[in-house]
Amino acid sequence: MALSRLITRVENRDSGWMEAMQEIYSETGQARLIGITGSPGAGKSTLTNQIARTLVEKGNNVGVIAVDPSSPFTGGAILGDRIRMTDVSKMEKVFVRSMATRGTLGGLNQSARDVTKIMDAFGKDYILIETVGVGQDEVEVVKTADLVMVVCIPGQGDGIQAIKAGIMEIADLFVVNKADRDGANRVVSDIGSMLLLGQKTDAPQPPIIKTVATAGEGIQELVEQALNLLNSLDRTDAWQHERIREELIGLVKKEVVDLIKRNWNEDGALEDAVKRVINREANPYSIVQEVLAPLDGFLKKQ
Amino acid sequence: MALSRLITRVENRDSGWMEAMQEIYSETGQARLIGITGSPGAGKSTLTNQIARTLVEKGNNVGVIAVDPSSPFTGGAILGDRIRMTDVSKMEKVFVRSMATRGTLGGLNQSARDVTKIMDAFGKDYILIETVGVGQDEVEVVKTADLVMVVCIPGQGDGIQAIKAGIMEIADLFVVNKADRDGANRVVSDIGSMLLLGQKTDAPQPPIIKTVATAGEGIQELVEQALNLLNSLDRTDAWQHERIREELIGLVKKEVVDLIKRNWNEDGALEDAVKRVINREANPYSIVQEVLAPLDGFLKKQ
Repeated sequence: MALSRLITRVENRDSGWMEAMQEIYSETGQARLIGITGSPGAGKSTLTNQIARTLVEKGNNVGVIAVDPSSPFTGGAILGDRIRMTDVSKMEKVFVRSMATRGTLGGLNQSARDVTKIMDAFGKDYILIETVGVGQDEVEVVKTADLVMVVCIPGQGDGIQAIKAGIMEIADLFVVNKADRDGANRVVSDIGSMLLLGQKTDAPQPPIIKTVATAGEGIQELVEQALNLLNSLDRTDAWQHERIREELIGLVKKEVVDLIKRNWNEDGALEDAVKRVINREANPYSIVQEVLAPLDGFLKKQ
Repeated sequence: MALSRLITRVENRDSGWMEAMQEIYSETGQARLIGITGSPGAGKSTLTNQIARTLVEKGNNVGVIAVDPSSPFTGGAILGDRIRMTDVSKMEKVFVRSMATRGTLGGLNQSARDVTKIMDAFGKDYILIETVGVGQDEVEVVKTADLVMVVCIPGQGDGIQAIKAGIMEIADLFVVNKADRDGANRVVSDIGSMLLLGQKTDAPQPPIIKTVATAGEGIQELVEQALNLLNSLDRTDAWQHERIREELIGLVKKEVVDLIKRNWNEDGALEDAVKRVINREANPYSIVQEVLAPLDGFLKKQ
């Protein structure tokens, strides 16, 4: 099956998706994942584009996953990002997939993981995951990467604070993009100071690299540093273990939440519950107690 | 039980939390919830502070819930926000609660709802929920509000794009804060244009109000407009129904996810599963199929 059709099937949980994932799973494990994150307007899409191009020039197959905030207006990913990504998506060896963060019940994280696995099985050497760096779900997405790049720009003011709070500690590498603007060196030194403050071990500090993505400046150095880091990062058995644990929990979580959505809606049971709450015959907390009772021994060893 | 102790008990799901929620539920339904959201650095905390003060001056009891990005560095909410909030939290009639977005499995949304219910039952007239406006979970939090304010500032450039994508459509009112800066009128007209583009009905457009929160400018007008809107917004039975439906789904979702975390970890079953994946005796997708089998009829009418 073609890559994009399989991704759609798995994203939508269409019939046969799980069998397909089980089938391809043994083909996974080769691709390296690079997470690219930062606040809105940091130029992540352009940077991702340039990194993808550079990796292709080095002879690699590249996959790109762009995760955009959801919008009921557009029904999904922001058109702008798609347009900007067109450049590289026309290259033969780059496969680009936009993912929207649709719906109330989330599962963005797991969907991105699934897509990663599929691209991996389809022979991508590197997979770039681009996502906004604010927001819990969005941070979780990049956490699954082998290498996390955090993109900052000059003149963001309090923006640094938000970056610091959410994702500073998961960065393996910092990019100061739009480095031709005033204040670029200030950002570099701010990041350096924050790293010193937060340093817990005497492990090497993440490199900080200046780029001007729109002009292609600094991209070669960035990619080289990233590839070096990917080779040198110490991915222990414990790290591998932790990653699979997270993967299992994420997968079960998504399936159970889908199940709640589907089963509870199916035959009017949820509507009945809503009416009971409205008529004050029950409250949400008594209802949850009722419906969870059958789950008493769920997931425990039998 | 004191308000803050009850909140802690419910947040931590400590013994007796559910009984406590069931007990207080009948006391809820009086408070009006105002969501305040926008990108990092928009001055949301200062604005929230000023709105809280103004509401108190009008004779109200006010609760504030500040939702901050998680940080393994700080172990929770950003110190900065807490400090800035101190101002108003010293006022007798304002109760401030910071919530961190801890942990992999989320549940931020439901925790905020729980805290809202508790403050409601404890007699708060207005509850302000302040949250970063980028990120799926964060947007979900403000969606539960009766009135949603979206805070923009001049000079954010592409920031507007992110706001547009995520939360433009849930705004009942726009605030252009830091309106003493260059470009404030530009932001007002940009928002106006976007509203026109996205307009689906001939319902009245959300008002756009300029403020300088640090100087208290525009706050009186903002609060008056907000209160007027709260009185005029058409909250139909269908809206009420939808809200309770979301509440029930959110609550069940959080409890099931907590259950997964607890039960699966408890007696080594999860560790066994991880080992099977590492040894290639199983893959995550076959394991999820196994563990979900007992849930076949879950939530369906019996």
